[in-house]
Amino acid sequence: VYTPLIQGLSIKNKQAIARSISVVENEKHNSRDFLSQIYPKTGNAYRIGVTGPPGAGKSSLTDQLIQQFREEEKSVAVVGVDPSSPFSGGALLGDRIRMTRHFSDDKVFIRSMASRGGHGGLAQKTQEVGDVLDAAGFDVIIFETVGVGQVELDVVQAADSVLVVLVPESGDDIQMMKAGLMEIADIFVINKADRSGANKLFISIQNLLSTIQHDENNWLPNVVKTIATESSGVSELVCEIQKHQNFIHETGIWKQKLNERYARQVNELISQKLQSTFWIESKQNLLQQKLKEERTTRLSPQELAKELLNNA
Amino acid sequence: VYTPLIQGLSIKNKQAIARSISVVENEKHNSRDFLSQIYPKTGNAYRIGVTGPPGAGKSSLTDQLIQQFREEEKSVAVVGVDPSSPFSGGALLGDRIRMTRHFSDDKVFIRSMASRGGHGGLAQKTQEVGDVLDAAGFDVIIFETVGVGQVELDVVQAADSVLVVLVPESGDDIQMMKAGLMEIADIFVINKADRSGANKLFISIQNLLSTIQHDENNWLPNVVKTIATESSGVSELVCEIQKHQNFIHETGIWKQKLNERYARQVNELISQKLQSTFWIESKQNLLQQKLKEERTTRLSPQELAKELLNNA
Repeated sequence: VYTPLIQGLSIKNKQAIARSISVVENEKHNSRDFLSQIYPKTGNAYRIGVTGPPGAGKSSLTDQLIQQFREEEKSVAVVGVDPSSPFSGGALLGDRIRMTRHFSDDKVFIRSMASRGGHGGLAQKTQEVGDVLDAAGFDVIIFETVGVGQVELDVVQAADSVLVVLVPESGDDIQMMKAGLMEIADIFVINKADRSGANKLFISIQNLLSTIQHDENNWLPNVVKTIATESSGVSELVCEIQKHQNFIHETGIWKQKLNERYARQVNELISQKLQSTFWIESKQNLLQQKLKEERTTRLSPQELAKELLNNA
Repeated sequence: VYTPLIQGLSIKNKQAIARSISVVENEKHNSRDFLSQIYPKTGNAYRIGVTGPPGAGKSSLTDQLIQQFREEEKSVAVVGVDPSSPFSGGALLGDRIRMTRHFSDDKVFIRSMASRGGHGGLAQKTQEVGDVLDAAGFDVIIFETVGVGQVELDVVQAADSVLVVLVPESGDDIQMMKAGLMEIADIFVINKADRSGANKLFISIQNLLSTIQHDENNWLPNVVKTIATESSGVSELVCEIQKHQNFIHETGIWKQKLNERYARQVNELISQKLQSTFWIESKQNLLQQKLKEERTTRLSPQELAKELLNNA
């Protein structure tokens, strides 16, 4: 049933790609069978995560990365994860507009996903969309997330190389550590590096990095200065990404990352199935009934959970 | 076995509170039995969530809120959720230091939690800690989170009133919407309101709010200007919180929130139990074995999940 779609994917037909992503995103028909069928075609794309605080210029930088990779004849897909909003009624496409110049390029595919309201975990869904693009044969897949929270970090952390984009205004060390950005970065990008404070930020990141213990099996993150709007520093950045890619290939870290993604997917699929099997109507009704009882005299959540599990 | 601890809680003994939280946070002994025993004593505290981008002055504002509530003879507990960092080796306590002036006050309790590396979900753990403080009889519990991500939003969203703290530098509408802050706020706080841009931000929030459909059963968020470091605007803020509290009491929204928290807890407890029961050693071994096989020829994650579930 998915044969035409999979054929379309194999020739990077944009309509087939969009339809495939929609199957996965909305869990249409048997999206799991579809993902199962494309699995052998995955594992070839290089996945790059781009994150950082709002206003750091992530979209402009992504736009520049697309340009650079295209000059190297590599095909590029971008998955932008934005919080959906009741005001906009969907994912915010504003920043994606910066990338429109690539829309007519057959070897570039850009997609926005909303981070709210979907079934299942966002990190899993994003990875599944990545698998579709991987199966479509894109050389590079860029995951761009806005925000600095745990789920957003989970999305980029599943990538092979993680770029943390900061600007001189990003503030002091403590704020960066708080945002949880220090520990996930493979490469730091100081964007808008012509603004004052860029050198101070550069030095403070270097200082923080110098406190990490590392040897030949650990990657020491490097720091690259860019001015995305002027294409400055972008080819150096691509060069650093290449270095990191070589490093994780040689050390076996890449294979390990692929295995971790595989195990996480298995875990997530099982967890969802266990829950949907458990919550049959009679159990849902028992919970609803407790909610109607007087708060202070009803069973505690722990007692009710035990009772529901004993009736399993 | 928990009788002395529960007795200590009932007289707000700080050592007993700290030990109780540690039982819950580290899932010591039978922490679920403990939570089950204190359940009837919960549901009385008013829970306030405080969130916003890094650098918005959330801790200073929380410090001021403590002061105001203390003047009204209310006891206050604060749960600060910070990302833990490999650099600092734990939760970042820096900002909490601002609140030290309250440490000697018997009716104030302040605790930091790390947002990473714990078992189970952070939102659940935070709620359990809230339940301990609720059982200890605190009138107000403030949950303060750094960062603007999904998990951090989940934490504050479980509160009764959600304060979103912004500063004039927080940027334009799009950035705010992107951060997912618009939809969760019951009250907007423009802190550092003496800085330029405060009025522009005030107007742009008002404009956004004017686009929401609302009637007497929906709360229309209001906007309060503060300068936390000068205690300016804080009593107005407390007044707005009181208004929101009255509103959710009268409309039955508060009872509904308590029920949602109860149902979420039941769900989470069951989900954890189902997974720990499922992943017996033989199943873990089967997964490990697949990871050693050749990537392209092994079962897809979907096929392996099915196989594992069939062997259940």
